[in-house]
Amino acid sequence: MVENVRLYSDERIDDLLTKDMKIIQSKQVFCFSLDAVLLARFASLPIKRGRIIDLCTGNGVIPLLLSVRTECPIDAVEIQERLYDMAKRNVALNGLEDRITIYHGDVKEALTFLRNGSYDALTCNPPYMPVVGGEKNKSSHVAIARHEILLTLEEVIRISSKLVRPGGKVAYVHRAGRLGDLMTLMRKYRIEPKRIRLVYPKPGMEANMVLIEGIRDGKPDVKVLPPLIVYKENGEYCDEIHSIYYGDRKEE
Amino acid sequence: MVENVRLYSDERIDDLLTKDMKIIQSKQVFCFSLDAVLLARFASLPIKRGRIIDLCTGNGVIPLLLSVRTECPIDAVEIQERLYDMAKRNVALNGLEDRITIYHGDVKEALTFLRNGSYDALTCNPPYMPVVGGEKNKSSHVAIARHEILLTLEEVIRISSKLVRPGGKVAYVHRAGRLGDLMTLMRKYRIEPKRIRLVYPKPGMEANMVLIEGIRDGKPDVKVLPPLIVYKENGEYCDEIHSIYYGDRKEE
Repeated sequence: MVENVRLYSDERIDDLLTKDMKIIQSKQVFCFSLDAVLLARFASLPIKRGRIIDLCTGNGVIPLLLSVRTECPIDAVEIQERLYDMAKRNVALNGLEDRITIYHGDVKEALTFLRNGSYDALTCNPPYMPVVGGEKNKSSHVAIARHEILLTLEEVIRISSKLVRPGGKVAYVHRAGRLGDLMTLMRKYRIEPKRIRLVYPKPGMEANMVLIEGIRDGKPDVKVLPPLIVYKENGEYCDEIHSIYYGDRKEE
Repeated sequence: MVENVRLYSDERIDDLLTKDMKIIQSKQVFCFSLDAVLLARFASLPIKRGRIIDLCTGNGVIPLLLSVRTECPIDAVEIQERLYDMAKRNVALNGLEDRITIYHGDVKEALTFLRNGSYDALTCNPPYMPVVGGEKNKSSHVAIARHEILLTLEEVIRISSKLVRPGGKVAYVHRAGRLGDLMTLMRKYRIEPKRIRLVYPKPGMEANMVLIEGIRDGKPDVKVLPPLIVYKENGEYCDEIHSIYYGDRKEE
């Protein structure tokens, strides 16, 4: 499928390690990381009927990965034109134009181009890092994708709550240190936290990431899933990560 | 020290597995469990100067265990007269009358007999289980200690916030399913969650307990400590629990 898709000079095509999927990335602009892969596996999805949305989609890695788990249509939103364009080309590269729609727009304004309460599941790997005054170029693609420059966590959650129907599911990946903010803000906007998974880089270390899923208007009571410890004591990937990165490839 | 302490017919004296401490328990009335032991090891304490309080102390197991980690005076509150009496005898049994003071009273009314903002650290292993209509004897000692009959989680947190000074630390152990309630209620009463540890019964299972510590008027940003998985794959205690139950004994 590759031949019809334009590539910029800084871009490369990587193997997405899932089915035969490929993905355009650029170190200068955007590369997906483990957090996106984990979120795409963690989120609960409708399989046959329903509609899914991914916010802050970057180069579209999450919709691509979700597409192998569901037959439902997937929408995605990206504010940066350069990344929106990359995401569109990624959809084309994998022949998924009939299943994935990428919108170019601001998540804060999503209700001007997406319908209120129309989604059954929502995913978002939002900009993570706090904005620190003057230390970095706030206009760079990477800075906007990583830092809370254009979008705060509260704005993500407020919009998420409006986009999903009552009973719809909302899943995020974020820094573990924000767990308190995630839980209180999700509740504030009526997304009740229902499933949590902490991700630890190595045995004996503090968690650095959290996967969290809530249900719009759900009842309180959260399940804390088994911990995911990325590396074993011996420095190898744990079995779960190993199978993400190598297992599927072996099956081909 | 045992000879001067009265025992009821249903009571027995157990080894507390810490130094030479002993504890009076009763299957009919109150036995401590792993959650109390873990909380007593998890909580941050002042060592030389400061004052500590334990709410819902039961037979006083937490103050006894804390006393080996700190030189500070420890107060404790228990509403049930029978348990208050057992806790007093446990203090005497271990010769700790000059360091631990047990109060007989209702935690909800704690400010009538304890001073506002006077504690540097607070611990509480509160009644855990939801109240389910008519299923059990709501007046039994065990039911009151285990279920939210006389005291809700919100009441515990509201009073905790009043008892500690700004910057004081508040540590709880609770069912993992209440993590959302814990975090939102702690914030509501200005106790910012700062340290969390999830306790999993076995590898691959969901967490059943959570240890959580907050700081009165602290800044947001929570550390999620390494998971505690109680049993190994082979059914043996993990090293940490093993050392709690057997390690200290070997050292004597």
